[in-house]
Amino acid sequence: MNANSPNAPVSACLIIIGNEILSGRTQDKNLAWLAQQLNETGVTLTEVRVIPDIEATIIATVNECRAKFSYVFTTGGIGPTHDDITSACIARAFGVALERNAEAEAILERHYTREQLNDARLKMADIPAGASLIYNPVSAAPGFRIENVFVMAGVPRIMQAMFASIQSTLEGGAKTESRTLAAYVTEGTIAADLTAIANGWPQVDIGSYPFIRNQRLGTTLILRAVDTAQLEEATAQVKAMLLTHTQEILEEDLASA
Amino acid sequence: MNANSPNAPVSACLIIIGNEILSGRTQDKNLAWLAQQLNETGVTLTEVRVIPDIEATIIATVNECRAKFSYVFTTGGIGPTHDDITSACIARAFGVALERNAEAEAILERHYTREQLNDARLKMADIPAGASLIYNPVSAAPGFRIENVFVMAGVPRIMQAMFASIQSTLEGGAKTESRTLAAYVTEGTIAADLTAIANGWPQVDIGSYPFIRNQRLGTTLILRAVDTAQLEEATAQVKAMLLTHTQEILEEDLASA
Repeated sequence: MNANSPNAPVSACLIIIGNEILSGRTQDKNLAWLAQQLNETGVTLTEVRVIPDIEATIIATVNECRAKFSYVFTTGGIGPTHDDITSACIARAFGVALERNAEAEAILERHYTREQLNDARLKMADIPAGASLIYNPVSAAPGFRIENVFVMAGVPRIMQAMFASIQSTLEGGAKTESRTLAAYVTEGTIAADLTAIANGWPQVDIGSYPFIRNQRLGTTLILRAVDTAQLEEATAQVKAMLLTHTQEILEEDLASA
Repeated sequence: MNANSPNAPVSACLIIIGNEILSGRTQDKNLAWLAQQLNETGVTLTEVRVIPDIEATIIATVNECRAKFSYVFTTGGIGPTHDDITSACIARAFGVALERNAEAEAILERHYTREQLNDARLKMADIPAGASLIYNPVSAAPGFRIENVFVMAGVPRIMQAMFASIQSTLEGGAKTESRTLAAYVTEGTIAADLTAIANGWPQVDIGSYPFIRNQRLGTTLILRAVDTAQLEEATAQVKAMLLTHTQEILEEDLASA
């Protein structure tokens, strides 16, 4: 993919905030889902950071990434407990106050009884000044957007609902399409032929990924491009090349992103 | 966790190199596995980066992270195809030559027939000058270590075999132990009590993670510490606190990392 192409997709960075991912206890489920949704919008997930619940790290990472990428998404750390420090860190990163948001407070008042709405839950209405809310139809407590940074919950079902409500506000570029071909041929066997094809299609990104299945070595090839005509022609060339090395191609067009 | 503690674990960063992870097509399986293995060695996975197969990005990320963390592990991009650029990028990051490694060449010569060992496969014997090899019992082509950077394959089975061969060479700090408690109580209900307990145990990291199971909201609490006695006492306090809000604690000690 030529990043300087006028059709180059818009870039995004996901910052996953959470000790539970870094400890290996919880398997992240947000990266792959968000990547696919962003691609549908013409936004390319360009980098992911997984960082711990440490204030200085969150602030530095958010400030670096919001300057570097078109959009930044964060997941995790916006709940009511002592380790939920994301909102306060975002306020510090932007140099604005963290203040009680009247709209967020009203949402929580509708969702909780007066007895349930204790100080800890009210903390979830503390939002950086100038941010707009991201609604949460699952458990009420909202996320927020400030400039190009979208702050969302870490629980996948809540994150997905939040993203659905802001997806249409993203300004995407051209959508990247992809084609997939796989075969029981090893990378080393096809590498030279593949390089020749890749050199002929500078606007088509061709990725080669070895796999081991049923004790056999094989290769999955993923072609990605904005220009569908080029993508189809390059895919046909790769397919014809594979058929000079093997009689069977295992899968086609399995990936849509 | 107090990072300035004399028992503070040694830090590590994982750099996942691969467009297939960023596109959402492939679900990463290396992060959680490596995090748990590192913890067994007294090394804490402190940050993870997922970056694309772009030379400038790989070089900048490796140089930033190797200065910042005790150990850096990379996965992906050391195969024979045109998109396997990790080894060349690591050489550039360290300012050394990428050169044919005699030991790696001998390994490939033993593994492949003379006909199979084409130029593309021989490329896998090109290793940064001064690096030592990381053996690959699965598919022969080695990874390598240069200073504090360990360069490994992306295929989980190969990465795991490579890591096993270098795990004993890591100099870990004190091992972090963990305890897990979960219950059908919401974070907002226990937040104030939990904050009080967390404030009393500055050397115990207490993470609170909401979940939705069987349409019910609940919270998982993960306590982590180097000092086992403190960990047990803090866990007992959290358990007693939970039992003032609910009659049933769902799981204990499910997580070992």
